[in-house]
Amino acid sequence: MNLPEPPRKVIVLGVTGSVGTCALNIIRSNPRKFELVGAAANTSSSKLLEIQREFSPGFLHLMDSAAFENSRGEFPDDLLYQGMNSLVELIQSTDCDLILAAMVGNIGLLPVLAALETGLTVALANKETLVAGGHLVKEALEKNPGSCLIPVDSEHSAIFQCLQGQNPKHLSRILLTASGGTFRTTSFEDMKSITPQQALQHPNWDMGAKITIDSSTLMNKGLEVIEAYHLFEIPFDQIEVVVHPQSIIHSMVEFHDRSFLAHLGVPDMTIPTAYALSYPARINLPQVSTLDFASLGSLTFEPPDLKRFPCLTLAYESGKRGGLYPAVLNAANEVAVASFLSNQIKFLGIPRLLESVLDRFNPGEFHNLEAVLDADDWARKRALELCDAQTGSVSS
Amino acid sequence: MNLPEPPRKVIVLGVTGSVGTCALNIIRSNPRKFELVGAAANTSSSKLLEIQREFSPGFLHLMDSAAFENSRGEFPDDLLYQGMNSLVELIQSTDCDLILAAMVGNIGLLPVLAALETGLTVALANKETLVAGGHLVKEALEKNPGSCLIPVDSEHSAIFQCLQGQNPKHLSRILLTASGGTFRTTSFEDMKSITPQQALQHPNWDMGAKITIDSSTLMNKGLEVIEAYHLFEIPFDQIEVVVHPQSIIHSMVEFHDRSFLAHLGVPDMTIPTAYALSYPARINLPQVSTLDFASLGSLTFEPPDLKRFPCLTLAYESGKRGGLYPAVLNAANEVAVASFLSNQIKFLGIPRLLESVLDRFNPGEFHNLEAVLDADDWARKRALELCDAQTGSVSS
Repeated sequence: MNLPEPPRKVIVLGVTGSVGTCALNIIRSNPRKFELVGAAANTSSSKLLEIQREFSPGFLHLMDSAAFENSRGEFPDDLLYQGMNSLVELIQSTDCDLILAAMVGNIGLLPVLAALETGLTVALANKETLVAGGHLVKEALEKNPGSCLIPVDSEHSAIFQCLQGQNPKHLSRILLTASGGTFRTTSFEDMKSITPQQALQHPNWDMGAKITIDSSTLMNKGLEVIEAYHLFEIPFDQIEVVVHPQSIIHSMVEFHDRSFLAHLGVPDMTIPTAYALSYPARINLPQVSTLDFASLGSLTFEPPDLKRFPCLTLAYESGKRGGLYPAVLNAANEVAVASFLSNQIKFLGIPRLLESVLDRFNPGEFHNLEAVLDADDWARKRALELCDAQTGSVSS
Repeated sequence: MNLPEPPRKVIVLGVTGSVGTCALNIIRSNPRKFELVGAAANTSSSKLLEIQREFSPGFLHLMDSAAFENSRGEFPDDLLYQGMNSLVELIQSTDCDLILAAMVGNIGLLPVLAALETGLTVALANKETLVAGGHLVKEALEKNPGSCLIPVDSEHSAIFQCLQGQNPKHLSRILLTASGGTFRTTSFEDMKSITPQQALQHPNWDMGAKITIDSSTLMNKGLEVIEAYHLFEIPFDQIEVVVHPQSIIHSMVEFHDRSFLAHLGVPDMTIPTAYALSYPARINLPQVSTLDFASLGSLTFEPPDLKRFPCLTLAYESGKRGGLYPAVLNAANEVAVASFLSNQIKFLGIPRLLESVLDRFNPGEFHNLEAVLDADDWARKRALELCDAQTGSVSS
């Protein structure tokens, strides 16, 4: 007789975001399969309080110090922590099986590296970590045989699923599908006056602000290209982006025998999130709709328009240059998106800002963690400076 | 250092058909990977002579005795054999690794069972074998642990590829795609006067006459449903047919987590034939086109029209009844297709003939090989009788 496995102990970083919320729903519906042993957010103490009442995790964590100071009195003693150092310590000392890294932006790098160095499985929804520190993540994976990385992005989850049971030697191409974003059919002329409100409307996926803007510039796809390069160890010229507006095919792989395998499903992050949490098993997801092919209409494909979406080209170029360029691109992009959202720069100013920062970057010879963090820091400062300096010309 | 593997020794049954020709092309382009050690055809001695000159296999075989008598003098001594018994003996005595069963119709059953009982790998392109004797094939596979069955049909190869590395416990549905055949959009009224010449034009696939007619009645898809039931051990109500006129998605599987995996490619039997020959490896197929998604246009889906294509319903019903019903359906269908091709019955007479034969069938309690062959024989005779009797009414 097979005894049922004990629940998988899970820490969720970025627990209040869209993937974090997905994960909580999955854990809630599968109490025999998963147990929440820790949860981290940036500022949202009220959500952490709710999570504490429902899941009683072993720790709660806020990155933001002001939010921490304002709310610490509401939490039981010794339950709420704050800051990067304590998060890394909690990851290293908590009895857990899997860490879901679903925070937004570059703050994912240190916790992810800490988790891998502790020999944990990391379900990675934070693409910036792999973009900025892909080589560090791979180093940590190689040095710690118990560690394991499972992608959560729907595209990389699709590719990861298509490659199960396949010999990576036979892989000839990865086709990352892209919805094309909100402005797929918008003319270049009309793109000059895109507002943040317009850019925050994604046609298919319900996601956070940063990733929705990245989707609308195709930078999201560009970051995914770099992520795919690290995850699947395939040269950039064998990674292709195909615009597929319906977001039903979540990505594809091609093998040497001209066979393609594709992952399809409704556009719902519950599917890849659950897969990453339960891998290699699959859990029932009755709450997610199935695809009804008879009423699906048609699936279409088109090449990305690199003239209107230069961010994709910038990402390929940064990826091919390698070293610290992707970290610079990623950091500058975080600043550019925030500046666009606060109406400091225009939509078409985003790629221009990135290009200016990349042009000014002078790579050193080191690529270690300190060098990555320095490059990130340098890029943010340059981006802010350029942003302030260009505001006049860019937004006029 | 890894020594290269010796070439895989292959016997091709049905070597002059479309899949057999595909296989010869693959063997020709990959002499280090494959060696043709035997080849069998029905009547075509001239093609066997060409094969003998090019590949020097250990034996050649003709099923037809008249063709054998007429041509035996042209072959070197002791190279050409004839008849079912000698084919079974050759399969059992030849030093070989894999048998490609690519003959048409029910004559595949005995050679396939012989190969499995000898512990060989069978690449199965002959769907009638699995339809008529699926339970015997499975018995042979279970009793002979060295034996192995790999599907060659593009649909089943697609499913087989999608299931690699997946736990079959997580499978919830199989979606067999169907081009819809030549008459997908033909009105019922116009279907009354379909000629064999019209029915022999398949929109996407270049195949033999029997399978092309089966495609046009959707019986081909019906036989594939029964085949899938045996190959993947899934109930009939979890096997669905989806009409997909472009034949780019070759079939799909759905898992419990609403994930779908699909196999895509150009409609070219070289891909699944090569996969079955080289499994689990994949070989380079530069002669096959890749899919260019940017110029692909759209992929569409629709439910099959069971009113215009009752053969599909008959296949589901026969499959669900089980026992010898699929053997009866299959044998009657072979007669019906031949009668249609010789203008004895009309296109819409095919399902009517099958229904009449199935209605008259009185299943006994045995399902062994003899019972299968008896049922097959009975069904052919009834079909011929009914055909003769109905010719007046059916073709009027």
